[in-house]
Amino acid sequence: MQLGMDSNLESAMQMLIKTFHKYSGKEGDKYTLSRGELKELLLEELGTYLGSSKDNEAVEKVMNDLDANNDGEVDFTEFIILMGALTVACNDFFLEYKTDDKPKDECQSAEKKD
Amino acid sequence: MQLGMDSNLESAMQMLIKTFHKYSGKEGDKYTLSRGELKELLLEELGTYLGSSKDNEAVEKVMNDLDANNDGEVDFTEFIILMGALTVACNDFFLEYKTDDKPKDECQSAEKKD
Repeated sequence: MQLGMDSNLESAMQMLIKTFHKYSGKEGDKYTLSRGELKELLLEELGTYLGSSKDNEAVEKVMNDLDANNDGEVDFTEFIILMGALTVACNDFFLEYKTDDKPKDECQSAEKKD
Repeated sequence: MQLGMDSNLESAMQMLIKTFHKYSGKEGDKYTLSRGELKELLLEELGTYLGSSKDNEAVEKVMNDLDANNDGEVDFTEFIILMGALTVACNDFFLEYKTDDKPKDECQSAEKKD
């Protein structure tokens, strides 16, 4: 079924899965992110979005919001909910920005042509 | 902020946004998918996942599930919920499969090395 001819959406899904497991496999339960693994993922993979606050409150807030049951682990579904919320926020930012017609420095590649 | 050095997660978010707007802009409201636009997106971008049922019931089911209020439009948030559910399903499939240790023909690139 068209192996090697993945669409952008299929590539996006694969990137989300690959990135989660790249960090979740480092310590403890291989299929969940510990607080340490989540922090590493956020800092290394989402630094652009977390921006200047990346060293402190943004990371702490995400960790506390996701780890609602305080077991110190984030599973794949919780990770996808976070990524979905971030993507919706990024899209909103992108749409608001288009009405201003000025360059922006985050979510920018969304405007690039294929 | 590291323009041109997007991580996999940042690229995935951008692909989701770009793909949605590629289809949503074709007719009617530029920021929502009509039933026709959604069908085109599903067939062209998710054919691998819809598989052999792509011509019929899978597309109809997704359209009916997403268009809960029957206005014939799917907004970006609803699209992201669909993509999140698909990604979680793909991850579950991937994890179950690993225990079987056989090759699989969908979600496969998730196993490729960087």
